[in-house]
Parts: sequence; structure tokens; C-alpha cells
Amino acid sequence: MTPQLGGVPGFRDLLPEEAEVLRAAQESLLEEMRRWGYRHVITPMVESIDVLELGLNADQRRRLFKFIDARGEVVALVGERTIPVARLVAGKLRSAALPLRLCYAGAVLSADEGRFHQRRETYQVGAELVGASGAAADAEVIALAARCLEAAGLRRYQVDVGHAEFFQGIMDAVRLPAVVKAGVRSALAARDFVALEELLERTPLRSAEHELLLRFPALRGGSEILAAAGGLVRNRRSEKALSELARVQELLVAHGLGGVVGLDLGAIRDFDYYTGIIFEGYGPDLGRPVAQGGRYDRLLSRFGRPAPATGFATLRLFGMRAVVDTEARRDRDARTWWRAVGAENLIQCRGASKVAWTARGGRTRTLPPEQVAARLAGAHV
Amino acid sequence: MTPQLGGVPGFRDLLPEEAEVLRAAQESLLEEMRRWGYRHVITPMVESIDVLELGLNADQRRRLFKFIDARGEVVALVGERTIPVARLVAGKLRSAALPLRLCYAGAVLSADEGRFHQRRETYQVGAELVGASGAAADAEVIALAARCLEAAGLRRYQVDVGHAEFFQGIMDAVRLPAVVKAGVRSALAARDFVALEELLERTPLRSAEHELLLRFPALRGGSEILAAAGGLVRNRRSEKALSELARVQELLVAHGLGGVVGLDLGAIRDFDYYTGIIFEGYGPDLGRPVAQGGRYDRLLSRFGRPAPATGFATLRLFGMRAVVDTEARRDRDARTWWRAVGAENLIQCRGASKVAWTARGGRTRTLPPEQVAARLAGAHV
Repeated sequence: MTPQLGGVPGFRDLLPEEAEVLRAAQESLLEEMRRWGYRHVITPMVESIDVLELGLNADQRRRLFKFIDARGEVVALVGERTIPVARLVAGKLRSAALPLRLCYAGAVLSADEGRFHQRRETYQVGAELVGASGAAADAEVIALAARCLEAAGLRRYQVDVGHAEFFQGIMDAVRLPAVVKAGVRSALAARDFVALEELLERTPLRSAEHELLLRFPALRGGSEILAAAGGLVRNRRSEKALSELARVQELLVAHGLGGVVGLDLGAIRDFDYYTGIIFEGYGPDLGRPVAQGGRYDRLLSRFGRPAPATGFATLRLFGMRAVVDTEARRDRDARTWWRAVGAENLIQCRGASKVAWTARGGRTRTLPPEQVAARLAGAHV
Repeated sequence: MTPQLGGVPGFRDLLPEEAEVLRAAQESLLEEMRRWGYRHVITPMVESIDVLELGLNADQRRRLFKFIDARGEVVALVGERTIPVARLVAGKLRSAALPLRLCYAGAVLSADEGRFHQRRETYQVGAELVGASGAAADAEVIALAARCLEAAGLRRYQVDVGHAEFFQGIMDAVRLPAVVKAGVRSALAARDFVALEELLERTPLRSAEHELLLRFPALRGGSEILAAAGGLVRNRRSEKALSELARVQELLVAHGLGGVVGLDLGAIRDFDYYTGIIFEGYGPDLGRPVAQGGRYDRLLSRFGRPAPATGFATLRLFGMRAVVDTEARRDRDARTWWRAVGAENLIQCRGASKVAWTARGGRTRTLPPEQVAARLAGAHV
């Protein structure tokens, strides 16, 4: 018999340089969170399915690693840590006064192998602010997420802020069959604007909100889009979302984050539990998000301790799709570091107008920065 | 439906003070290991059962959390990390030159609920030295384990060193039915000397080794027991074990550890893979070991890369049965700290002849140190 020396497909060993990069990144993030008053908690790898089902939708439940415990109960390996922290706040910490600021660092697992040998075990660091509603709490968590991206070594990043209620208000207002609404939601979540247009073309109904749905791809940018969207919506739910977004953006500017924060009214999240401001952080590659979070005011009540809450998790502490060498390493050192963090592309700045771009397995090309950005973006849209 | 707010039985949340104690202890140990040249690696939570079976005995396999993967393969949550590290050394690191010094920090899981609500997820830090045979390597790993106990905050500890081959040599030499040999092994592993005596009383055979088995409880102490045992054994396997033990002990004295190292010829380990020097570290309570390790020269060959190896894991980074306040905290601070680390007993030194002992839920008693030691030991023999 030949044992599987590479381990189970989808599960990766982290070699010394990678493991040390990951551990150092976790420590930096936890340290930043502690500075903001967040206390570290550790929740188990295994949770009862009854607990996890309180926060996950059908698709997420399908992706859980489930098994039967010795006592015949169905349990699962955790796929995210917000739900376990909510259980902890309503359970062992039920007599602790709110607001509670908690943070964690831990593995999360997915039974889904996905395409392209997706990793099934990833390492997340996250923070949860439980018992605080309002724009100040939203802004605190977004600002903390931004500082965490810096602490993780990202010098250039962007945070897109949206609101779960903006879309919900439009869905309430438009008269569309449930199946079309579900399709619209899926298309937006996947950012598949072609599918969105096709869906809406086939419906005869017209309304301001209907028009707005078609303009979703454009509802991403600076504060000017708030005014543009405000002129189009005709429902109180979406209007309230816009005014909350405006307030949070003001506070983020006050946090010194005006330069990195953008608005994204078309943001739709996979998680059922989001109820308000939602956000995503992106590294320089603008591919998959490196951080994700938002407000979830109804989750705690499902555990018997009603409380507003907001939080986020950093999803990729290394292995980002492209890494930008901001430390001007020598070529050889840059390559060692690039291999260690497991990124597909290495970007090295060669002055203001030239960038050296190396794709894994390819040669190095020196190009103007905008061409490199376009190629990286193009490969992943 | 009422969700299980306490989580799945056997799985505990760690509250802020506990989580921070654990994380800080992990960091201190990894830092100590890095100083000794050990590089950090991270292996997955999930391994193929084929891989784990290469190192575990039937009882340990039974305790694994097993489940069927989406591809129909039987996988399990890791119950220890030495076997995954061996797989890694023979796999992804197969072209890395030996000796390799590697360390890890990670959760391990047990499906066994055991008696007394045993924890099913614990957090271990460990080190493996692969590709080095001989007493110097054994002594290095034992000395590193000792320094790790200090780094974890234990000011008083003891390391008992034994040899897997000493017992094997005796088992080869004595003529006993296989079932009796298995019983002897179990009785020694459980340190159940009453059962051992009963078993041996019922066998008519007599030999030097037979006598020696009965004297196993006494074969624990300083270097004098090597001479005593040497006078009793008549087989080369055990004699070789004794001479290796003598050499390792000399080196540990040279490491400055003469005061904390004891010999234990009756040591038997649960793990099938040990082939040479084995050891256990104990905190001041002398209950369950806080660290455990030894030489396993045949494990790597099962993965196709034959190499000698030795290593250890720290089993309890907090939650020790008794904690000794070596920092002379004020009573109130000592109690906060004691609760945080989750120990059952708090020991405070009140000068040379008095010790304050507080059991959880009980009042504080001031007693001579030897009485406290006897009571703590008595409760767990």
C-alpha cells in the first residue's frame, strides 16, 4: 500500500516559510484587535448541526463536513466562526455585560472540493462587536478590518461598503415572480450582469426599482452614487439603507479611511444573517476578497439573547492571488518570499511607470502599472 | 428548539483569559523551539485513515473521529501530530536534507468521551527531530521539552526518562503466554501494580526477568537504578537499553538538567511507534503528564523514507490539575489567574515550611508542603 503522502485532496501542509508567515500574520491581527479592546476567545472545531443551522443557508449547510457523534447526534466541523461566537455570547458569556468585543483565530473547513483544487481548510482571524447598534459600531468594525489588512502586510487595499437592506427594499418594491427574484439575487451575488440583464429583459414590468436593478453594476464608487441611487429608489427600506451608508462613510472619512473606502450598492452576501451595513476588503489584485463582514442584528436572538452585532473575518492571511513586493527585496529574496506565501503573481515596482510582473511558471514582463492591473483583473472577472 | 448553548459535550469554549493564556503559551513554546532551530509547519486537521493507521494501534484508531469524505474515502480528524509530520517529511519535504527539525501547534481531537467529561479537543505544541539517531539527539529533544515546560510557566517540573526496549527485552526473555504478556503490558501502562502482581502470581515460571517485572514499581529514581536493573537483566535488548539510558542521562546532566531528570524503567507507552528512549514531563501535581515523547525509528520507513526520529508534544498548555503560584501574586490576582487557567487546585508558597492549598469549591488550608503533595498525589493514584 502506498500511503497518500500529499494528504487528503484539498488539505495542504504548510511548510516552514508558509507556516511562519501565517502564524506571524495571525499574531499581528490578534495584536491589532487587542489594541482596539477585542478579547481573544477560542471556540471548538466541532459544533452541533442544530447550532450551525441557525445561521447558515441550505447551500452553506451542504458544504459542511458532517458526521455522527458517538451519541448519535449530527455534528459538523465549523465552516465559519461567527455563529459559534454568537452561541458563546448567548451561552457561557450570557452574564457578561454588552457590548462585548471578541476576536478569534482558527481553522474553518469546507466539504466542498470546488473547482481548481480549492482549499478545504483555511485559517481565518475575525472580530465580533456584539451589543452595539448604529453607524459608530459599523464604522469601528470596518476601520478595524482596514487596519488589520495593513497589519497583515497589505499596503494597498480597498474596502467596499454596501448595505443588505438596500437590495431587500428593492426586492420588496418590484413586482416579480419569486423565481425571478431568486435568480436576480443569484446573478448579483455572482456579479453576473449578463445573466441579470437577460432575466430582467424577459419581465414586462417596469418601475423605478426595476431600472435600478439594471443599473446595479454602476452603483459602485464614491459618495456621489448615494445621491444617484437616492433619486431612483422609492421605498423606505432602501432609503434608510442609503442614509445609514452615508453616515458610516462620513465616520470612515473621520477614521482617516476616505482614500480606501468605496461604496457598492450592488453587494449581495452569501450569508443569510446579514441585516445592515456589509463590507469586503480587497488586496491589490481585486480578485476574491481578503476580508468580509457586516451587521447581523437577528442572529443572537436565535440563541435566546437578542442583541445587535457586527463583525468581520479575514479570509486569506497568505496565498493571495498576487503579492506586491512593497519592501523592495532583491529578486532572489522576492521569489523566495513569493513562493512562501503561495501567490500566483508577483508584482515588483520598478519606479513610477514600470512594474515587473511574474506569473507562476512564466517569465517576468516589465509593463506600465495599468496594463498589469488590467491583465490581472481581466483574468478573473 | 433550544440550541445547545454550551456546544457539543466534550468541546469547550475558551473565554478571553483562558484563550489568551493558551495563545501566549503556544507562542512561548514555538519561540523556544525556533531558538533551538526548529521550523514551524502546519499539517491539516483531516488525514486519510490509511495514513493514520501506519502509526496507531487498535485502541487509538477506535478513538479517532472518522467520517466518509465526499469521494467515499474514510478520513479522520487528527488525534496527534507526529504521524502527519512523518507523512510530510516523507512527502512534500522528501527532498529536504536530514536532519530536519520541525515544530507545530495545533488542535487534536478524540472521539472518546471518557469518564469525567474528558475534553475531546485539546491543543498541543510539539517538536520532531527527524534523521538523527543516538543519545545526543535524544538528549536534545528531552532538554528542549524541559525548556518548553519552563517557557510554559512551570517553575517546578520533573522529566521521567525510560526506554521502550527495556521492557521489550524482558518480554522476549520471559516465557509467558501471549495473553499474560498483554495483561502485563496493560497493567504497567496503567501503573496498576496490584493487577500486575496478581497476574504474575498465577504464573509458575520464575526467572530473573520475571522477578524484575515484580520490581518495576521500584525501578524509578536516580542513576542508581541503572546498576540495580543491570544486575537483574540477562538479555541483550534490555542491556542495550540500559546503556543508552545511561548515556542520555549523562548528556542531560551536561545540559544542566540533572536536578529535574529521573529514570523510569517501568515506563510503557500507549503509542506503538516508540522504539527507544521515551520520556514524560510532569508539573508539580505529578498527576497526568504535561509532556510526552520519545524515539520512533521505524515510523518514517512506513511512509517510504526510512529515518530515525525523536520528538515530543506538550499535552496541556493550561488547565493543569494544580497550579503553583511562583510569582507571589496577591490572593485576589492568584485566584483570577487560577480560574483563568482552569486548574483544580491552587498552591501558594508561604515560606519554606508552609503551603496554602485551595481546592476548587473548597476553603484554603495551610499545610506543610509534603502533606499537600501527598494529598494531591493520593487523590489521583
